Amino acid sequence: MKSSIGSKVRLTVFGESHGAAIGCVLEGLPAGHKIDFDLVFEQLSRRSPGKDPTATARREEDMPEILSGVLNGVTTGAPIALIIRNTDTVSKNYDNLKAQPRPNHSDYSAFVKYNGYNDQRGGGHFSARLTAPIVAAGSICRSILKEKGITLGGHILQIGSVFDSPFDPVNVSARELENLSKKLFALNDPSKEELMRKEIDTAKRQLDSVGGLVELAAVGVPAGIGNPMFFGVENVLANILYGIPAVKGVSFGAGFDFSGLNGSTANDEMYFDSQGAVKCKTNNCGGITGGITNGMPITVKVALKPTPSIAKPQNTVNLKTGENSVLEISGRHDPCIVPRALPALEAALAVGLLDLAMEDKFI
Amino acid sequence: MKSSIGSKVRLTVFGESHGAAIGCVLEGLPAGHKIDFDLVFEQLSRRSPGKDPTATARREEDMPEILSGVLNGVTTGAPIALIIRNTDTVSKNYDNLKAQPRPNHSDYSAFVKYNGYNDQRGGGHFSARLTAPIVAAGSICRSILKEKGITLGGHILQIGSVFDSPFDPVNVSARELENLSKKLFALNDPSKEELMRKEIDTAKRQLDSVGGLVELAAVGVPAGIGNPMFFGVENVLANILYGIPAVKGVSFGAGFDFSGLNGSTANDEMYFDSQGAVKCKTNNCGGITGGITNGMPITVKVALKPTPSIAKPQNTVNLKTGENSVLEISGRHDPCIVPRALPALEAALAVGLLDLAMEDKFI
Amino acid sequence: MKSSIGSKVRLTVFGESHGAAIGCVLEGLPAGHKIDFDLVFEQLSRRSPGKDPTATARREEDMPEILSGVLNGVTTGAPIALIIRNTDTVSKNYDNLKAQPRPNHSDYSAFVKYNGYNDQRGGGHFSARLTAPIVAAGSICRSILKEKGITLGGHILQIGSVFDSPFDPVNVSARELENLSKKLFALNDPSKEELMRKEIDTAKRQLDSVGGLVELAAVGVPAGIGNPMFFGVENVLANILYGIPAVKGVSFGAGFDFSGLNGSTANDEMYFDSQGAVKCKTNNCGGITGGITNGMPITVKVALKPTPSIAKPQNTVNLKTGENSVLEISGRHDPCIVPRALPALEAALAVGLLDLAMEDKFI
Amino acid sequence: MKSSIGSKVRLTVFGESHGAAIGCVLEGLPAGHKIDFDLVFEQLSRRSPGKDPTATARREEDMPEILSGVLNGVTTGAPIALIIRNTDTVSKNYDNLKAQPRPNHSDYSAFVKYNGYNDQRGGGHFSARLTAPIVAAGSICRSILKEKGITLGGHILQIGSVFDSPFDPVNVSARELENLSKKLFALNDPSKEELMRKEIDTAKRQLDSVGGLVELAAVGVPAGIGNPMFFGVENVLANILYGIPAVKGVSFGAGFDFSGLNGSTANDEMYFDSQGAVKCKTNNCGGITGGITNGMPITVKVALKPTPSIAKPQNTVNLKTGENSVLEISGRHDPCIVPRALPALEAALAVGLLDLAMEDKFI
Repeated sequence: MKSSIGSKVRLTVFGESHGAAIGCVLEGLPAGHKIDFDLVFEQLSRRSPGKDPTATARREEDMPEILSGVLNGVTTGAPIALIIRNTDTVSKNYDNLKAQPRPNHSDYSAFVKYNGYNDQRGGGHFSARLTAPIVAAGSICRSILKEKGITLGGHILQIGSVFDSPFDPVNVSARELENLSKKLFALNDPSKEELMRKEIDTAKRQLDSVGGLVELAAVGVPAGIGNPMFFGVENVLANILYGIPAVKGVSFGAGFDFSGLNGSTANDEMYFDSQGAVKCKTNNCGGITGGITNGMPITVKVALKPTPSIAKPQNTVNLKTGENSVLEISGRHDPCIVPRALPALEAALAVGLLDLAMEDKFI
Repeated sequence: MKSSIGSKVRLTVFGESHGAAIGCVLEGLPAGHKIDFDLVFEQLSRRSPGKDPTATARREEDMPEILSGVLNGVTTGAPIALIIRNTDTVSKNYDNLKAQPRPNHSDYSAFVKYNGYNDQRGGGHFSARLTAPIVAAGSICRSILKEKGITLGGHILQIGSVFDSPFDPVNVSARELENLSKKLFALNDPSKEELMRKEIDTAKRQLDSVGGLVELAAVGVPAGIGNPMFFGVENVLANILYGIPAVKGVSFGAGFDFSGLNGSTANDEMYFDSQGAVKCKTNNCGGITGGITNGMPITVKVALKPTPSIAKPQNTVNLKTGENSVLEISGRHDPCIVPRALPALEAALAVGLLDLAMEDKFI
Repeated sequence: MKSSIGSKVRLTVFGESHGAAIGCVLEGLPAGHKIDFDLVFEQLSRRSPGKDPTATARREEDMPEILSGVLNGVTTGAPIALIIRNTDTVSKNYDNLKAQPRPNHSDYSAFVKYNGYNDQRGGGHFSARLTAPIVAAGSICRSILKEKGITLGGHILQIGSVFDSPFDPVNVSARELENLSKKLFALNDPSKEELMRKEIDTAKRQLDSVGGLVELAAVGVPAGIGNPMFFGVENVLANILYGIPAVKGVSFGAGFDFSGLNGSTANDEMYFDSQGAVKCKTNNCGGITGGITNGMPITVKVALKPTPSIAKPQNTVNLKTGENSVLEISGRHDPCIVPRALPALEAALAVGLLDLAMEDKFI
Repeated sequence: MKSSIGSKVRLTVFGESHGAAIGCVLEGLPAGHKIDFDLVFEQLSRRSPGKDPTATARREEDMPEILSGVLNGVTTGAPIALIIRNTDTVSKNYDNLKAQPRPNHSDYSAFVKYNGYNDQRGGGHFSARLTAPIVAAGSICRSILKEKGITLGGHILQIGSVFDSPFDPVNVSARELENLSKKLFALNDPSKEELMRKEIDTAKRQLDSVGGLVELAAVGVPAGIGNPMFFGVENVLANILYGIPAVKGVSFGAGFDFSGLNGSTANDEMYFDSQGAVKCKTNNCGGITGGITNGMPITVKVALKPTPSIAKPQNTVNLKTGENSVLEISGRHDPCIVPRALPALEAALAVGLLDLAMEDKFI
């Protein structure tokens, strides 16, 4: 099992939901960068449980301790290790899951892979809690990108049957993205918040959960970053985004809508703008052609499955008795993971983009 | 630029559309496997230009020469290098593209990245022609997987406005997949072929192109293969599938449909079948939970953008004159890349699955 | 800067000598291994400062806290993170070194690489203190190897002008290696200890330091592990051994003595032993031919330079004043690093061998 | 089996001695570099069999065909694949080796690893012939380094009992290295050639072989390239140098001589030279401290074992009969590999240095 990713910037994540601590090591950052701790704390707050009324009741401060790689608040060039202690864990909630794997969760597949030795308490290393160090690491990467004029952010595009307005892929602005990145419930059209929360509340009341869609964007990425083949921008970003739990789909630009389009509609015609820069009139490619950035905003859509842990009784197997059985889950779980997944997806995007930008010596 | 991928099984692709040869190196295969050359040739034929009436008029035999790693038809454990000579190239068709980048193509982004030194003839290293060695390599991986009971295949799920029937994700069979893998125009519902061809013909007559969707599946993959975090089955497969030109979306199982679902609907309830094996009643997860296989069929959807090279006049920039201009492309191009992309996507899936299976010592 | 290594088994080291903590992440270990904490503590004691009368006066308990990857003392298959807090640090000793780089130390080269942002206190990330987490990680790997019949160890082969008896490369035994691995001052011929200590004492009294040689061996490694080219046993082991500070030479088997030998003398003739196993009469190759193990003991020699930090006045530059200057170092430093480097080198050997063995599915 | 190495610059080597062709893929080179084909041919001639009176009688032109990544003699940024056809192979010479593994050769260890499926003809993938594509690749890297002011070269330091004068590690010059790099039998002190040739002739007449030592150097490498821990200059260079067959020892600067030295003698005192540059009075560290270059010349020593294939009868096993037996080798083999290994070692050094320099954005 390898929980690390990246070429120039390398992220290694460790920890289990109910273990001593979770954390990560971030290698390859440039020396001399002053860390924006406010940004780190802000982003960790966004994904922290208990901040939002619709989220799980588990409360933790989630403030990381930085163990290395930073001196007087400035990166030294050495690996940055940070940890977050686990304090508010209630493991007995999970005891019956050892025998009864939860549908759509890692319980059964992990049981087979690790011969039952995996730490299943709270999902163990598979828990969404592991996104906390990713958010911390991503926030550091994000402020390095920002220094070079690259801004990223995202919003909830869909929860259940309610849709937010999508980004304008040509004109989405750094200011827009920065504003979204401060919000607990980030939407382009704030009037959708009430409807979305209603979807989540309904699911909760029905002892159920609901899935959703996130849209991410990055602006200020210069043309010429990325590669053909297997180190393209899409490859690298999809690889890291699929590292966030519950992600089951990743697409770029028009994504799955391309299948119904003609080339004449899908093609992003090019022109010189008034400053002589090459621009596209549309941005169906999401800022990436041939695996390489073309200077237009990067846009990504990410599909998230509904939280698998629901309170409704479900059919599953009992691995101890060898008989089919009914499972009732009593732990604390988000009825909708989307709002808290958003900062984790933004963080993953930041790590991936910094890796790509440093590979191509832009940073 | 790195055009290689994989941990245990490593694939390195080289070549340009109009260079001396294209090819690849495949490292890490087990020694002692008898190569099924018929399968290699069959799969290369499927993606070969000129085989299908709707495809580009370029004709090449595309039969690879194996330079190393194989003795008397059997793998030796050493790296397998194979090359395919380029013979039928008409480079003058591409001369005006050096100045006028084609919309949605790599021309502009590659020009920036390589300071104009990239070989742009026929798309160079970015050409879909580079999928030929991937198909050859993937066919070798495929027959190794088959020896261990893993069968994979795929079909065209959508072209323009026409849809094929999707796989039954619970019951899709090895036989079904094998039959599909022999076809030039692979469909679950053959009655859709005429309608799809009509979509392609219409696009062609209108000097246009059309996008589509491919669905892939693998059966016989045992539970317990893969990893949490960044080496999960989804991460590894998405990474390699995005290496096939024109791919703009990759999803697993229910994929983007998860966003509208409740947990109680999305969750794949588990049971012991009559042989005592753990099975799921539904397969929305596409055979993968927590990044690890659960023993159900793996299902993947891949979105392909329409061929960017269309004969219709398009607005673009002229990098030499610095003025906006109109581009008319005269080369030979598929009006729809989907049928020929299918064997390349199957090949990429095979390489990725073999890598995962060998990492976990299943092979 | 990447401080990680390995394919199947991946080790990432972090921390600085005078930072909050040092530690490492160890990925890829098999699940279900009961950790031998006694071995971990024993090995950490061997490299711990203050244990041996000849070593630096700095005292730390160096007992690691395991943060993840272990449940009830057994590996879970998830990444193992462990940290050791830094407690007994006296940073003011190092203040003048910021301007005056120590000869043969990383001070100047690191200053250039990191634009002066590196943490230079106590050598920062370059400190030999960073071998503590390597020893802890290596001890875990070591007991996994031992379960499969692979035993490793080493001894001090030379300090200054005093030599220990070398291993008998054909007959070196597991018992011999295990006994050596418990000693603070490991020698094949214990009568040499007094002479070696005298060399160290003399150096210390002269405000000087002295270099040395270590010889390592591993027995029970089956034939067939490793690779030709760049993933050979020598490549992998040299790569990781050079990660231990002060190492300036690594050789295998007869090593540098091969240069004066004829093939007829150097060649290790083979024979079937009484059990029908293939053996060699001699073992000049150190158990490795063509980058692959041949079943004979693996033997490695490692050359260590004298501790660069000596109390004698030395000429160096002053980077602040831009003038040549004289440096007098007052911190606590081992006059001879060899005895404490030995357990770190054994640990590095263990990590490398486990990586190789797991790559080839022996473990 | 992975035969690839490198981070930014990645080299993948394929082929077998008696297969269709040998070759390599070189990824990650900068676009726009004009290849110095004269240098490629010059270096290939140096390692080519049959050029030197003391070398094996096998003659091949060894001129590589470049298949990709180069347009009009200039790198495009895409992977460079090059192949060399095998023409003058006499496989029957090797037939008896299948049963009777040669002492000190890969025959037995490879037989075990690959279950007998490896191509043993002429050593297969383990043959020193595989250094031809490495020399070609290294020559390309070398001229890229040279454009940035980095020059490298080497000489034969020892054959049997005869020693050449070592480099002056402080004052070795680019001109000196360039001159050496043109010679078939490169020596600092040409008067030693006759004595060394006599050693080789004597070994040949006695149906024997003889080992030796090579010393390499690189000048013009700026300070600040490399890393602590596992990506240090020593780690990276040792890793790639051990990829050249017959290498059994690699050391840097004073190397194994450090073991007998005191710190006060070993330490390279620093000073500002007349231009204000930081220099060292001595260069025992071989230009590397803390894994990072310090601006002094890099010096490396490489120990090579005697050619294992000797004509003298040798004891070995017969894997078919299961009995001990006597082996008489009749093929064509160099009695001393050192002169032809030298350009391969220089090439490996060039690939490694370019990788390091590009990682740190110097190139």
